[in-house]
Amino acid sequence: MIKVTILGNASAKPTVNRHPSAQIVNVNEQYYLVDAGEGVQQQMFRLGINPLKLRGVFISHLHGDHVFGLFPLLSTLGLYGRQTPLKVFAPHPFGEILAHHLRYFDSQLPYEVEWVEVDTTKHRPIFENRSVEVWSVPLRHRVPCSGYLFKEKSPELNVEKFCIEKYGLSIAQIVAAKRGEDVVLEDGTTIPNGEVTYLPYEPQSYAYISDTSRSAMVARRIKGVSMLYHEATYTADQSREAKARGHSTAADAATIAATTEARRLLIGHFSSRYKDAGVLLYEARTIFPNTDIATEGETYTLK
Amino acid sequence: MIKVTILGNASAKPTVNRHPSAQIVNVNEQYYLVDAGEGVQQQMFRLGINPLKLRGVFISHLHGDHVFGLFPLLSTLGLYGRQTPLKVFAPHPFGEILAHHLRYFDSQLPYEVEWVEVDTTKHRPIFENRSVEVWSVPLRHRVPCSGYLFKEKSPELNVEKFCIEKYGLSIAQIVAAKRGEDVVLEDGTTIPNGEVTYLPYEPQSYAYISDTSRSAMVARRIKGVSMLYHEATYTADQSREAKARGHSTAADAATIAATTEARRLLIGHFSSRYKDAGVLLYEARTIFPNTDIATEGETYTLK
Repeated sequence: MIKVTILGNASAKPTVNRHPSAQIVNVNEQYYLVDAGEGVQQQMFRLGINPLKLRGVFISHLHGDHVFGLFPLLSTLGLYGRQTPLKVFAPHPFGEILAHHLRYFDSQLPYEVEWVEVDTTKHRPIFENRSVEVWSVPLRHRVPCSGYLFKEKSPELNVEKFCIEKYGLSIAQIVAAKRGEDVVLEDGTTIPNGEVTYLPYEPQSYAYISDTSRSAMVARRIKGVSMLYHEATYTADQSREAKARGHSTAADAATIAATTEARRLLIGHFSSRYKDAGVLLYEARTIFPNTDIATEGETYTLK
Repeated sequence: MIKVTILGNASAKPTVNRHPSAQIVNVNEQYYLVDAGEGVQQQMFRLGINPLKLRGVFISHLHGDHVFGLFPLLSTLGLYGRQTPLKVFAPHPFGEILAHHLRYFDSQLPYEVEWVEVDTTKHRPIFENRSVEVWSVPLRHRVPCSGYLFKEKSPELNVEKFCIEKYGLSIAQIVAAKRGEDVVLEDGTTIPNGEVTYLPYEPQSYAYISDTSRSAMVARRIKGVSMLYHEATYTADQSREAKARGHSTAADAATIAATTEARRLLIGHFSSRYKDAGVLLYEARTIFPNTDIATEGETYTLK
């Protein structure tokens, strides 16, 4: 199961009600922070998310509104006595910036911050564990920038209870079936795996795409994603400004969602000029009806 | 007139409701930012304070909870097109930290950020204009740290209306009286200045004292201050921890206020362990009754 909690949906100029970009992606109770605009630690406290639980941080690019909240968070994790190393995936030269931060503010940190350099020109897996695989997704912005695609791994097969009883399966036979093998009964009969097992849930995927101009390549790389977050800084009448500044309109975001056949679209990273994001939502829904505003404080569940 | 608006009153670990240290000191509609914990720009927006109005920034010391909010603010001022240079008063090595920030995040800033190094071992005037004089106040913390004393300048004398009529004063005579000179009438009579003029208001002073262990020297240097903000991280039963960490208890803060004969005391910089700051307020009021909590969002007026 993937749950996405929105901590911030503003673009570079924060407003009274909108924080800069930050999200928590929770894959089977493993927490990942995606972008870290100013105020991210306090937003986590407000929503009852314990920052000590973070397994990793993914930074799309090195504009302040996507990263200024990381440094106070690193300090606070130190004050809370974190011991577990924390991996931060970010483009070059994040390592230099981190080194300066540690030198001036956190020379005594009780845990290690490990920078993993993200090549923003490559679409490839950059992190993997038993539950999830994370892929970089090259974006088109004014500075090197990467989106992130979270792909939940296929769960282990479950064995149907009534089959266990019907065939009197042993522990060894159940374990073999969970691995995907056919079941061979004592009398030599072979029962096809598909007859005794089922997938307990459908693996989900989530793509975080910000900041970027509209890119057909992005759509190809996240084909069929369960939920897409796509930046929508402007309305379509500002498409020239969007392109010039390496951003997307709400119509762009919806077009990508339609092209990639996403099941659901969330839009965010709104320019401060839109006091009410309703106009952006309306524009996107005209093209891709299953669109919602990535609302701060809300959690979106994929299962 | 001095007005102090509290943007944050937390110590190093922010909580759901408390932001880290930051205040606006407004002297006759000139705005100064004193310390700049994370979230300071959004707090200003929330309270309707235009950050473009800032005349200067005073940073007490280089712990993150007093300075992490400055860098996003510098970026935002750039996005808003600020042209006027901004002076930042801060201890060494702020200049190095600023240079790294500008290099990685704000190389195109449309205004200049001028660092003025504060010698945290000296009590002396570091800034002056027609309305105010600001003095550094050496504090006792784990790193070099300075408080700031804002002293409103004496206003120009006003001339009593009825004296103007009674003596038929000319413009030249009024201007001379406003300068403090005696009035010489046409017949040679001298009217003492004090008889024709009055001070339109009493000049005020405000001391910002954070972070520090209790220091008798501080009390001497801010003698008779109109309003004192003094950190009160802990209750008196934690005085050993307070001393070890270079902090004060609420009792320490109140003792300084009493010793220095301040007219009013505000306490803040509360440890996150105190969910309700009432216990700190109670402790301080036992020693110095005219104490209040420096409440976020509140403005305290001195006139």
